[in-house]
Order: sequence, then structure tokens, then C-alpha cells
Amino acid sequence: MHQINRLAIVGGSHGNELTGVYLVKKFQKSPSLINRSSFETLALLGNLKAIAEGRRYIDKDLNRCFHHQGLQDPTLATYEDLRAKEIQQFLQPPNQPFVDSIIDLHTTTANMGLTLILGNMHPLLLQLAAYLSSINPLVKVCSHQQARTSGFLRFMCELGLVIEVGAVAQGVLNAELFQQTEQLIYAVLDYFEGYNQGKIPQTSNTLKLYESIGVIDYPRNEAGEIEAMIHPQLQFQDYQPLNPGDPIFLTFAGKEIFYEGESTVYPVFINEAAYYEKGIAMHITQKQLLHID
Amino acid sequence: MHQINRLAIVGGSHGNELTGVYLVKKFQKSPSLINRSSFETLALLGNLKAIAEGRRYIDKDLNRCFHHQGLQDPTLATYEDLRAKEIQQFLQPPNQPFVDSIIDLHTTTANMGLTLILGNMHPLLLQLAAYLSSINPLVKVCSHQQARTSGFLRFMCELGLVIEVGAVAQGVLNAELFQQTEQLIYAVLDYFEGYNQGKIPQTSNTLKLYESIGVIDYPRNEAGEIEAMIHPQLQFQDYQPLNPGDPIFLTFAGKEIFYEGESTVYPVFINEAAYYEKGIAMHITQKQLLHID
Repeated sequence: MHQINRLAIVGGSHGNELTGVYLVKKFQKSPSLINRSSFETLALLGNLKAIAEGRRYIDKDLNRCFHHQGLQDPTLATYEDLRAKEIQQFLQPPNQPFVDSIIDLHTTTANMGLTLILGNMHPLLLQLAAYLSSINPLVKVCSHQQARTSGFLRFMCELGLVIEVGAVAQGVLNAELFQQTEQLIYAVLDYFEGYNQGKIPQTSNTLKLYESIGVIDYPRNEAGEIEAMIHPQLQFQDYQPLNPGDPIFLTFAGKEIFYEGESTVYPVFINEAAYYEKGIAMHITQKQLLHID
Repeated sequence: MHQINRLAIVGGSHGNELTGVYLVKKFQKSPSLINRSSFETLALLGNLKAIAEGRRYIDKDLNRCFHHQGLQDPTLATYEDLRAKEIQQFLQPPNQPFVDSIIDLHTTTANMGLTLILGNMHPLLLQLAAYLSSINPLVKVCSHQQARTSGFLRFMCELGLVIEVGAVAQGVLNAELFQQTEQLIYAVLDYFEGYNQGKIPQTSNTLKLYESIGVIDYPRNEAGEIEAMIHPQLQFQDYQPLNPGDPIFLTFAGKEIFYEGESTVYPVFINEAAYYEKGIAMHITQKQLLHID
């Protein structure tokens, strides 16, 4: 990899995830917080209308609108389709390459602590993730490779990543998580500054990576209505092992439903509010220990 | 008080408070759960459109639309104004008196456990509250008398109360809180059944009541934007004493702001998501020990 020349921090891709919204507003007021000598940092609010209305989105999920085809398609004209095109213009001004890195700020109602979701397996991203998880035990690292065609913002550049923080309710600021997210952003910026200057911080050569291998939906009736809730024993247990036979759901009538998979998995995004409508009660991941150079 | 003849359980007055929505759906499917021999129980979903869209409301907060004047005013015609009139018709069919009691089911992102908010100081409501808090230590009791003109549903009948449960995020079901709310509803119904049959359960003759005496807003700039968050030491500390000089907010720049009141108060609704737009960071209450007969 060449130098990192431009990096973008995006908050409020979902309008009711306030941590990113208010961090970006803070950075816009005080750019010196995110300026580094060797690269340019942009700070950008994502879904402006949804932020104003305190909703995730207006017509459709903005963070599913960044697929190449959709961005070229003039017939796609919902607010989010148009906003995705504006953001693309901002991140890729005429006759310039796309920003080298995007830090896309999100929160979740799942208990995911400070999660990094890597846009790809670029060696520099893996080294960054290993470094961040070695200096802060709250940092966990996920990837979700099969989502590459899903229109996520993080896939738009070479070094895209999401910071996904929780548990925090939609429409709420949690001061402790706000400050932890802020410090994590500074650590990313400092790492890239070190990289550009040939001074990468000493790091671990192993990385614990949770790779999404699929999703589990809520039990539903024929009309599509959910018939069960996350089991109390699974609630807030993101990144903990889920074994075959462990309780996973509890029906409204109080009947337990057990996990029927064949091997131990590590669920994340357990009981994420925004995923009820997407048919996702949780993602299941496999834990890998990567050796990195 | 005469007999209780009809009672209504309302869920989803706010469309993204799922506990009440799914409890009412359960009761509608299995009315025997809420039937009692001495009175009729209705189960009703509140804001149908907002429930379908997973939002608190469409145009305005339904649970502020039940003021006498508004219900008579044909020029008020937002979705919620019209729905409030429909609900009034449902709770008061032609030539019948209004339902005797309403149990209005809500959730909050504040850590309020199982809170009863009493619509008034009717002796039977106070006795009920004393009984429920004596059998379940998670039950807390609030009242908010100055809100009587605010158009809350609970003020529409003689024995109105809210069950306010948290902390739970908007758009999320928490199975444990769902089951606790359900059991609390059954305890209310059983208590009224006993009352009608002249067999009121033995109860405590004291009641710890948290009376709202006002609200505190977030610090805001001239444009009305918030400039601080709930202080980490206050987050989730509903019903705990807040003393003059205790930290209350933390600005985005990291500066602490301290409580400047003159005496100890007991905050509730700390960091409720839906109250950011209402200018409420928390309600402050005074704790009273009531002697009841």
C-alpha cells in the first residue's frame, strides 16, 4: 500500500444512532482533533433527513445503497439513493481517487462493546485491528465477507471499516460509549499517521477474528409476525459461545426453543432493533485466530 | 367506589414500545388470560400506523392527544388526533360509561424497572400500588399530578395507570421484562377481582411514592442543539438520590456539569430516548412515604 492521503469519518448513516452523529458534529467544529500531518481527514454526516427526524432512514436503509450499480442508476431516486450519490461525490471529488479509508460510525442495541467490522482482509486493516484489540480489551473484530454486494459504505474504499458500539438504545447517547468510541477513532488515526511515517506501533501477530457465517431469524407465523423473543440466557451475550442445544428463543407463550446447529458458534448483533424488519435475530460467527505478518 | 365493570389494557400507544404491542396481541389471541369473572377486560392496540412502521408516532405523540378539548375538536385531524377519538369511542361505547380502569403499557430506555405511574390519588389505586410493591420489590410507584392537562390516556378514567418498564431500547423485546410485565398485569387484574368480590389481599399500609416535581433539560446551544450527555455516574441510576453538587451532565468536550438544586431529589426517566425532542433529560421526583388506610 502507498500512503494514506485522505480518510473520511462518517456518522449518522443511520439517523437514530446518535454517537456517530454527535462525534462528527464535534469533529466538524474542532477539526484539529482529527487532523494528522500526513493525511487529510473529512468528517461527514450520513443521512441528513433521518438525523433531523431521529429515524434510522426515510425510505430505505442508506447503508445498503452503496452498490456500484445503484450509484450509476438514474432511476433510483429515493432520498437515500440520492444521498448515497451525494456522499459518493463528496468522497470522490472529480478527477480524484476515492478516499483511502472510511471509518463508518454505528451503534447497536446488541451488547457488542467496541466492535470493528472490517471491509476486507487487507493486511493493513488486519494489522490495525490486531493493534487496537491489543491495546483495548473491549475491542472485538468482525468481518462479513459475503456482504460485499450488499451496498455497505465500508466497501467503497481500500481500507473501509465500521466501528459498531453497543449496547445502546436508538435515539440515545451513552456518555461512556461516546468517549470510548472517540478514543478508538483517535487510535485509528494515530495508527495511520504512524504507518505513513514508517513508524507502525509494535503489535501482536495474532488476531482473533469473528467471521459472520450466516444469520438466524426469529420464529415467525405465516403472516410473518415474530412468535418468540431472544431467550433471556442469550440476551446481551454477544461473542459468547452458543452450543447445540443451548436455549436461543422464548415464545410469547413461554416455550423455550433451542439452538439446533451442529457446532459451537459465536452470535453477534443479538436483538438489534433495526434487524427485526430484516429477518435477522442475530448473526452467527466462527471464531478464528489469524496469524498476521 | 362501586364495582369495577370494565377495564382496558392498551399496548402500543407508542408504536416502537414492543412489550405492550406483543402482550396485547397475546391477550387478543388468548382472552382467557385476562378474563376475570367479575369484570370485562378489553385489550387494545394504540397507535396502529406507528406500530406498523416501528415508530413512536406518525404526526404527533398519541399519548398527548387525550385532552377533553382536543377530543371534541373536529378540526384536529392528524392520524393521532383521529385515532385518539377512535380509542375514546372504543373505551366508551354509545350509552355506556367510560371504562373504570385503563392499564396503559409503556417501555422506556431509562432504568425504571417495573414502574407504576398512577393517574390520580384514588384510594383504591394507592392500595393497589402498595400491594404490588409489597409483593414485588422491582415495583416502583410514581405520580405526576401536574400533567393532568397534558392529554395522557391514563387520565381518561377513574382508575388509570401506566406500567412503564425499562431499561429497554425502542424497537426491541426483552424477554425477561416481557414476562415481568405480564405477571404484573395479572396481579392488577387479580387485585381488582378480589376487590369486586370483597376479598382485597392483605397489604402494607404505607406506600413509597415518587412524585414528579419538574423536569431538567439537556444543556443546549442557541440553536437548540444539545451540548452535553447524561453523566456516566447518573446513567441508569433512576430512583437513586441526586444530591446538590453531584455530577449530572458531561459535555461533548468532556466537562462535567453538577446538579445545582437545593435539596436531594430522585430522578426518573433518565436518558429516555423519546424525551430528547421534548426538552426532558430526566424528571426529578420527591420521595414520599404515604400512610394509606
